[in-house]
Amino acid sequence: MLIRKKRGNFLEDFRVGQLFRHKVGKTATEGLFNAFTEFGMTTNPLSKNLRYAQRYGFKGLIAPPGLVMNMVFSQSVEDISENARANLEYRDMRFGAPVYIGDTIEVETTIVGVQPSSKEPDRGVVHVQTTGRNQDGAIVLTLQRKVQIWKDNQETKVEATALNEVPAIPCDLQIPAYQESRKYRELAHLTNPDTYFEDFTVGDVFAHSRGRTVTTAHMELTAMLDNTSQVHSNQYLVDQNPAKYIGGQLIVYGGIPFNLCLGLSCPDVGDNSVGDVCYITGRHTGPVFVGDTVFASTEIKDKREYPGRPDLGIVSTILRGHKFVKKGETWEKMEIFYLERDMAVKRRSHYA
Amino acid sequence: MLIRKKRGNFLEDFRVGQLFRHKVGKTATEGLFNAFTEFGMTTNPLSKNLRYAQRYGFKGLIAPPGLVMNMVFSQSVEDISENARANLEYRDMRFGAPVYIGDTIEVETTIVGVQPSSKEPDRGVVHVQTTGRNQDGAIVLTLQRKVQIWKDNQETKVEATALNEVPAIPCDLQIPAYQESRKYRELAHLTNPDTYFEDFTVGDVFAHSRGRTVTTAHMELTAMLDNTSQVHSNQYLVDQNPAKYIGGQLIVYGGIPFNLCLGLSCPDVGDNSVGDVCYITGRHTGPVFVGDTVFASTEIKDKREYPGRPDLGIVSTILRGHKFVKKGETWEKMEIFYLERDMAVKRRSHYA
Amino acid sequence: MLIRKKRGNFLEDFRVGQLFRHKVGKTATEGLFNAFTEFGMTTNPLSKNLRYAQRYGFKGLIAPPGLVMNMVFSQSVEDISENARANLEYRDMRFGAPVYIGDTIEVETTIVGVQPSSKEPDRGVVHVQTTGRNQDGAIVLTLQRKVQIWKDNQETKVEATALNEVPAIPCDLQIPAYQESRKYRELAHLTNPDTYFEDFTVGDVFAHSRGRTVTTAHMELTAMLDNTSQVHSNQYLVDQNPAKYIGGQLIVYGGIPFNLCLGLSCPDVGDNSVGDVCYITGRHTGPVFVGDTVFASTEIKDKREYPGRPDLGIVSTILRGHKFVKKGETWEKMEIFYLERDMAVKRRSHYA
Repeated sequence: MLIRKKRGNFLEDFRVGQLFRHKVGKTATEGLFNAFTEFGMTTNPLSKNLRYAQRYGFKGLIAPPGLVMNMVFSQSVEDISENARANLEYRDMRFGAPVYIGDTIEVETTIVGVQPSSKEPDRGVVHVQTTGRNQDGAIVLTLQRKVQIWKDNQETKVEATALNEVPAIPCDLQIPAYQESRKYRELAHLTNPDTYFEDFTVGDVFAHSRGRTVTTAHMELTAMLDNTSQVHSNQYLVDQNPAKYIGGQLIVYGGIPFNLCLGLSCPDVGDNSVGDVCYITGRHTGPVFVGDTVFASTEIKDKREYPGRPDLGIVSTILRGHKFVKKGETWEKMEIFYLERDMAVKRRSHYA
Repeated sequence: MLIRKKRGNFLEDFRVGQLFRHKVGKTATEGLFNAFTEFGMTTNPLSKNLRYAQRYGFKGLIAPPGLVMNMVFSQSVEDISENARANLEYRDMRFGAPVYIGDTIEVETTIVGVQPSSKEPDRGVVHVQTTGRNQDGAIVLTLQRKVQIWKDNQETKVEATALNEVPAIPCDLQIPAYQESRKYRELAHLTNPDTYFEDFTVGDVFAHSRGRTVTTAHMELTAMLDNTSQVHSNQYLVDQNPAKYIGGQLIVYGGIPFNLCLGLSCPDVGDNSVGDVCYITGRHTGPVFVGDTVFASTEIKDKREYPGRPDLGIVSTILRGHKFVKKGETWEKMEIFYLERDMAVKRRSHYA
Repeated sequence: MLIRKKRGNFLEDFRVGQLFRHKVGKTATEGLFNAFTEFGMTTNPLSKNLRYAQRYGFKGLIAPPGLVMNMVFSQSVEDISENARANLEYRDMRFGAPVYIGDTIEVETTIVGVQPSSKEPDRGVVHVQTTGRNQDGAIVLTLQRKVQIWKDNQETKVEATALNEVPAIPCDLQIPAYQESRKYRELAHLTNPDTYFEDFTVGDVFAHSRGRTVTTAHMELTAMLDNTSQVHSNQYLVDQNPAKYIGGQLIVYGGIPFNLCLGLSCPDVGDNSVGDVCYITGRHTGPVFVGDTVFASTEIKDKREYPGRPDLGIVSTILRGHKFVKKGETWEKMEIFYLERDMAVKRRSHYA
């Protein structure tokens, strides 16, 4: 008998309240760490310089938020979005315990809501909550997302259903305590002198000056994250139906520009951060292909105190990613990524 | 004096019974591990999830069979097949001790037979036996292969010679003992529920649904394996004589599709395996180039008991790899890889 | 307010005697190690085989000189050469303590001299001295370089200034002592039998037989080294002004062919070396682009005793890299790299 296992779930397969304990799990090896930390070109020494990370009270190098997000999110792809048409929104993504090299992350997802499309009979939106934990059971990341999923059979009737409320998942950024004895100032030269909490002004927009061209390496990087979705890595599939697949190109997995934008922002706003607190909402507003050059900007929206941490402050930002598309003789700017991002930033008064 | 060292051996250089202790050796770093384990997209948690691997009694993550094969095989390339025209067959490839991150593998090869071509005066076949051992002297892999090698000088007469018998190399798959106290069932959600020994039916053929497009990353991956053969990494060489080199393209090292096919089979047949026992025979039946998308299928040929291990069973399979080639308007399926593969698979009765 | 931070320094920003303590630092993970050691295809077991490295008295695998150079040099790019037009010369590059996986390297640079161009008003040359230290404060590498830097504003007058002398940085190659009890001969089969000190003849030129085609992987590798220079990774920037950027192509970071040439030389001259002592002078004499195949040759210039080490000798060489460029129907050889390289090589009398 010829068996072709159906992979992933279609819209009609999801049941509100259903819990997926995703398969496999993932241990963060130094190989994964190097590939993503360096690929994203993060410039925060907490992820690059062991001496610095340990001085700050961490056990080792910490995975930058882009890698933590990718490690957790990707594990949910097979069960949740293998048959997705589009990833619509990330919501309320909150970071918890730091992720170190050697940590093993396992992930669960709860189905929060199912909403068939009112216009198209072949699709609908699934609302999920995904949580990643390390080997000690500590939460490293929790997020919600809305994803547009294909139906397997257009005729199948799917009812709109939802939980009364999204389950409450307690998750706060875990940061080592501030200790004068750590003599942080001795290492202040390892970061920029003008990216402390005091340096940011609400209303400023940083046009991050560097760009990064995407190569076919996206396929190997996506495989490293166990992202099974074929639209990133199966050119033959795309060649069978170019019209369905955006003109015949493999589309780059959104986690790649997500990671790149975070990295590109780092020298201007991120290198004196001790972690990202929360991504309130985020979405991929445009596709990315091989050959595109990704750019980013950060708008400072708000500054406020960090409860219980006089050495830190919270900076609320909007991180936008864009690229340029050739139209005749001119280049048009196209937005590709939007993220409302709260960052925990050091105060110069305490660290420099 | 201008010196251009000749690299590798030609047909007339081999002597039956000759022992090569291959140079350098290789320590499995986390970088190598990440690159190949993730590249192959294996979904077996023994190679991905440290918590799972340790629960199963392994010291750490274990290298998947495709990486073990590559680490051992590649070390023999310079001495044995640097001047090969084609790798004809792998035979009797048997796995032994697990390979962990940090293990150092060194490799030896014995020349078993030399057979000049009866038709072409410029080539012949060399039959070898290659064995890889770790730092404790334990065998991790032993294999035989037949490879078609160029002569350096067509005039040189080469006699057909062979050992009376292939040396016996004892090598059995080393698996931690089954222990009820390990509570395997607690982790059963990390693998598929329908890939246990009991789930396979002789005669079934799994068309593995995913494909994987090969990019220029094959060159970096091949370098990571210390494979010195120039037809994979020297475009200039190929440009000098396109007719000799399959129309002017670099050919992808066979270990790459070997690794990909194993990985592609994993979700359907491999994620509840504790190891591959033996590859009875294998060959690369078609070339792979950048841009090709690799697919695979597994045919279930036989099931039998695993001697001494009532918790496991042996599933004999044929793993086939294929790609599609454009002929005018249609795509033709072309086989690229064939492997008779015996797998040690967990029984649901004991593990789930 | 829209802020676009200016990155790097321009000619008029440098002051003789100025000390830069470069930001971030870098811990050598196994991922970085694998990517560069394997990318360069070094065949020295000190960087590949842990058993061998430890037998020789090293704590672990040692980073090959190409990786040490890259780890140190790249950290100086943002402050020194982000706005460079050309990297003119490396000078007096001396190796010190070995670099192991897990070491953290931090880097400082002193401005030694500033020289405006006598012909072009928009550029000048900066002479610097860069030193990298590990977490114990031991120097791993020190070097000088001359780099041609753009002015930000052509009108700004820049005076020629220089320190009276280049600061003396004591830095000697640190090699474990020779100990008969280590039984080196037992491992002699892991390297070539004809690359010991006694085997080299002054005047010989080795045309290293292998070549290596450069792929788009150069971008990911350059990012792994935190090299921020946009001409390597921002195709959009290049597309805005192809004439300025060598006909519209991204240029490969020089550290890539530097690393490749060292690796290509290894089987013929490097695998019985215990380290590179000094690069007297080096320069990139031609550009490298994706698709180029890199070749190398080594000329033996001198042999002499290694002071205090009767088991070793110093071999002075010139390492040259080249590629071929199609001109009509013929291929023209173009030199791309030149390096005067002193190597510490084992004597057969003591090791084999």
